[in-house]
Amino acid sequence: MMRRGILTVVSGFSGAGKGTMMKRLLEKYDSYALSVSATTRLPREGEQEGREYFFKTTEAFLEMIENEELVEYARYVDNFYGTPKAYVEQQLADGKDVILEIEIQGARKIKEKIPDAVLLFIAPPSMQELKRRLLGRGTETEEIIQARLERAQKESVGMEDYDYLIINDDLDVCVEDVHHIIRGEHRRTERNREFIKQIQGELKGE
Amino acid sequence: MMRRGILTVVSGFSGAGKGTMMKRLLEKYDSYALSVSATTRLPREGEQEGREYFFKTTEAFLEMIENEELVEYARYVDNFYGTPKAYVEQQLADGKDVILEIEIQGARKIKEKIPDAVLLFIAPPSMQELKRRLLGRGTETEEIIQARLERAQKESVGMEDYDYLIINDDLDVCVEDVHHIIRGEHRRTERNREFIKQIQGELKGE
Repeated sequence: MMRRGILTVVSGFSGAGKGTMMKRLLEKYDSYALSVSATTRLPREGEQEGREYFFKTTEAFLEMIENEELVEYARYVDNFYGTPKAYVEQQLADGKDVILEIEIQGARKIKEKIPDAVLLFIAPPSMQELKRRLLGRGTETEEIIQARLERAQKESVGMEDYDYLIINDDLDVCVEDVHHIIRGEHRRTERNREFIKQIQGELKGE
Repeated sequence: MMRRGILTVVSGFSGAGKGTMMKRLLEKYDSYALSVSATTRLPREGEQEGREYFFKTTEAFLEMIENEELVEYARYVDNFYGTPKAYVEQQLADGKDVILEIEIQGARKIKEKIPDAVLLFIAPPSMQELKRRLLGRGTETEEIIQARLERAQKESVGMEDYDYLIINDDLDVCVEDVHHIIRGEHRRTERNREFIKQIQGELKGE
């Protein structure tokens, strides 16, 4: 029985260590795939089409929006970034659990369009730690620090919209937490309706 | 930070291997405790007060019902069996994840009284396997087989009320599934409201 993958959206305060955590998760278990975004920005040295990004012209990107080929998209400065539906769908159909790192607005859009997506929020273990990370190494300007605090405050309001909260204390424990959550999610009743119906049907037929 | 335990209710078709699975889970991880039932039946040889059961006189048991000291109870033949609230509460407060093996009616009562309990249903991997287990080794009477099929059919109707479905194929995989589910549940947003409020509050105070 080929089981369908689960789309997991990962967000968190900047500096929460999401990137490192996901890298470790993918190194450790081969059941995961990272979602690859489409973008209109130019490839940087060493970046490969379909690995870091799907590189698109603005025209092609706008066409993807038009054709509803993106689960969500956003514009940063002069470039578009978006999540191609077809790529995610293919990975899920192949049984891969797809990890999508995205900020809170994008996460909400994903949950609207794909209600069975799992939303994880990565938080630091304590306020002291959060402040330490937000303040940086004392080399930031007052302005940057203020902007980070404001951003963290806005993001923290949305924490309740997430399904799970991961506290990033020990990297390895966190990676295991994410893995356990997704493995557990596969066993949720609502993801196994077909199996349940089959057993119920066959018992009724007795 | 002492984290509160989670009450997990485990049900499943008879012969699904619940007992073996829970025994293995408790041997492997020390974060779990089995719920100990109160009963009016007499202790059998080797049974210890507070280990297999809390042994009660009928009078004492009826008093526990009266005083609402039981999360649920039922009568089988001439004896009462019930789940003492105080024992479960104490274990949860001590941070233990409490496992309670119980049939479907009892599971529903628990969920009503303790909505944050997690309900697991253990199912066999296939209908063939279920039938094999229900039919026994060919030594059962037609009557017993019929009763088992009817019981399994009734139980299967309630499968949808459970939060998770464990498919008992490989014992060790199942034990890990249960462990992952409960570990994941600890990270659910609704179980971490206090932590979230604290972070939100402190960020707001900035």
